[in-house]
Amino acid sequence: MRTPKHDLPEAVAKRIPIYYRYFKLLETDGIERIKSEQLAKLVAIPSATIRRDFSYIGDLGRSGYGYEVSHLIQIFSTVLKADILTKMAVIGVGNLGRALIENNFRRNDNLQISCAFDTNPALVGQTLNGVPIYAIDQLVTVIPAAGITTAISTVPSEASQGSAEQLIDAGITSILNFAPTRLQVPRHINVRYLDLTAELQTLLLFEE
Amino acid sequence: MRTPKHDLPEAVAKRIPIYYRYFKLLETDGIERIKSEQLAKLVAIPSATIRRDFSYIGDLGRSGYGYEVSHLIQIFSTVLKADILTKMAVIGVGNLGRALIENNFRRNDNLQISCAFDTNPALVGQTLNGVPIYAIDQLVTVIPAAGITTAISTVPSEASQGSAEQLIDAGITSILNFAPTRLQVPRHINVRYLDLTAELQTLLLFEE
Repeated sequence: MRTPKHDLPEAVAKRIPIYYRYFKLLETDGIERIKSEQLAKLVAIPSATIRRDFSYIGDLGRSGYGYEVSHLIQIFSTVLKADILTKMAVIGVGNLGRALIENNFRRNDNLQISCAFDTNPALVGQTLNGVPIYAIDQLVTVIPAAGITTAISTVPSEASQGSAEQLIDAGITSILNFAPTRLQVPRHINVRYLDLTAELQTLLLFEE
Repeated sequence: MRTPKHDLPEAVAKRIPIYYRYFKLLETDGIERIKSEQLAKLVAIPSATIRRDFSYIGDLGRSGYGYEVSHLIQIFSTVLKADILTKMAVIGVGNLGRALIENNFRRNDNLQISCAFDTNPALVGQTLNGVPIYAIDQLVTVIPAAGITTAISTVPSEASQGSAEQLIDAGITSILNFAPTRLQVPRHINVRYLDLTAELQTLLLFEE
């Protein structure tokens, strides 16, 4: 089995968590085996795409005979490191940061927001859904001490580059960025942009 | 100029709002002309991809000479209907729905959440950031009366199919869905999924 790294196409990487979610649903429903055509219908992704995506992960099943759900879960769970706890920091405790902390990926045992940072002195020292809120300048000590390498940034565009640089200095290597402006970061830093406005505009492009 | 409809590739549609955002930034900075190589560096998208994407939109500039920023803005703003107000309904006023309503796409004059719906009787009749909150069963009258065709759904997965059917009955044709489970909808209904957990898992796939 190959472990997906930087050579995994973005489009494939984006679908892997979706497949995994459906495998877990199939397992819950007691379904032990599924053909790519059935899976295609379920996840609304063409079966040819599914087969090609799976070929990046490894040898997952015999063509025509279908895939064994427990085997798929085992492989995908390794790829997604679903058994390893990933602790994360949230930067910016505005409306969105607050919503993320309140929800805290509660359906996923392996994803946990464990600290948050904000510039607002009124928030610093408080705890939200069990998550302590620190001042931004504590970031450089708190993040390495907690062994955190993943951050979710909800700071506004104009602050996001500076904030990203502080995060990288603190040892962060993966950033989920809600500010749309592209960050200038070293090559070994992974950044994903989640731009709610752009998602909505893309949706509206298909409006008749 | 072709207007992008259902034949526009998803990957291209996803990048159009990003380009548009950068054109506006260039305009603000007083930059009148840009070559695709410069734009590529700015938006962190390969210049070959940019040129191919632009070919879906129409004839945007002379190769080698660069693109005129004001012309790009004019064309992309038409494609994105950036001059037309799109009113939207939010379904589900939990943490995420609340964050969306509080922010209400304030940087985009043409995007406006104008009503919200929830099952919680304690919320119904209230107003949040000027947006009235209605009961779910009022959806079928309020949405057509307001001429709304776009909804943002933050309802949990188990309720999202039922909620989508109510929305479609009320005349909604575009849904931005924060619940990851794929909806079964008629062919003319546009759905985009915004799955925060999957985005995070995709990010972590690239973690060394």
